[in-house]
Amino acid sequence: MVRKTADQRRKEGLAAARRLIARDGISEASVRRVAEEAGMSTGSLRHIFPSHDDLFVAVLGECFSLQGEKIGQILNEARQGRREVFDACVEAISLVLPLTEKTLAESLSHLAILAGGGRSPALEKARRQAAEKLDYLCESIGRFSEKPEAFDAVELRLLIDGLMVRGIERGPEDLVPLLKKALVRMGIPRSNPRR
Amino acid sequence: MVRKTADQRRKEGLAAARRLIARDGISEASVRRVAEEAGMSTGSLRHIFPSHDDLFVAVLGECFSLQGEKIGQILNEARQGRREVFDACVEAISLVLPLTEKTLAESLSHLAILAGGGRSPALEKARRQAAEKLDYLCESIGRFSEKPEAFDAVELRLLIDGLMVRGIERGPEDLVPLLKKALVRMGIPRSNPRR
Repeated sequence: MVRKTADQRRKEGLAAARRLIARDGISEASVRRVAEEAGMSTGSLRHIFPSHDDLFVAVLGECFSLQGEKIGQILNEARQGRREVFDACVEAISLVLPLTEKTLAESLSHLAILAGGGRSPALEKARRQAAEKLDYLCESIGRFSEKPEAFDAVELRLLIDGLMVRGIERGPEDLVPLLKKALVRMGIPRSNPRR
Repeated sequence: MVRKTADQRRKEGLAAARRLIARDGISEASVRRVAEEAGMSTGSLRHIFPSHDDLFVAVLGECFSLQGEKIGQILNEARQGRREVFDACVEAISLVLPLTEKTLAESLSHLAILAGGGRSPALEKARRQAAEKLDYLCESIGRFSEKPEAFDAVELRLLIDGLMVRGIERGPEDLVPLLKKALVRMGIPRSNPRR
């Protein structure tokens, strides 16, 4: 048997946590059950994620570091005229909406962190980081608006959080159409402006 | 010592749960800690709220039955021309936003129920009821809009959920100004229309 590296174990633990959270909700994603799902001992998993809260922080943290890079790339291509602005904005925001099992688990972890209370510095830090990343995404989208008077980054942030709650409440069906409608209202152009 | 009725004990248990949830977050509101906060034995509290989830369901359920009545009354007065429409809409929606310790505890319970997963029929039912009440509120507000083409009940619902997340993330400061701005955009009249 090949011994797994710490990094592999961490990745497998995170994938198992996401599956369990998406399927059964945050309260079921105990360290013990995630270890079972990942086929690890509770001890090895606890070595990577000491508590229930650490799991959510890790799921959300990984999301924002991977998605953050991808989002930056998508919006960059749109800025350079290498892809359609409207589609790029929709695709970038879609990466943080609960549209797939993976992003549903991330949204649920985000809710868990928001609801988790003020006592834990780790949750507090994760909450602040998530807020900064999402605010930055909204400001970046705003630079594409052709009607700056109709665009407000805070309003887009409210919409993204509303869509997150909606997706958790009733599934992914209408999230993208609702997002598109709002982006049109906010002046995101339907085709690349002439340069 | 006067023996408390079951109803009194339930009310005191709920008040203690709300205090604890608002102060320390949902994960701290265990049945044991709520019992301590309420000055009851864990056994008596467990008799009223058998589990952690039952606490959230009860906090949110009480919120929607009491607030529902109050909201109906406020909007009714506006319909009858007995109070200013815009203020009535702001006041009605404010009752479901995390603006006070009580409504913060209710919003956190709502997040806990949303994130709580699909396995529990009690959470599923609470989630559905909360969604129905909020959707009904949004449709009721829509009847006051003077620009029906600018009003969409789903969009208002997204805004309310976004404001709920925002209030939990960074406090109540700008929730009401953001709500007012959106209501103006959605065509809610600033003074009563002539009859």
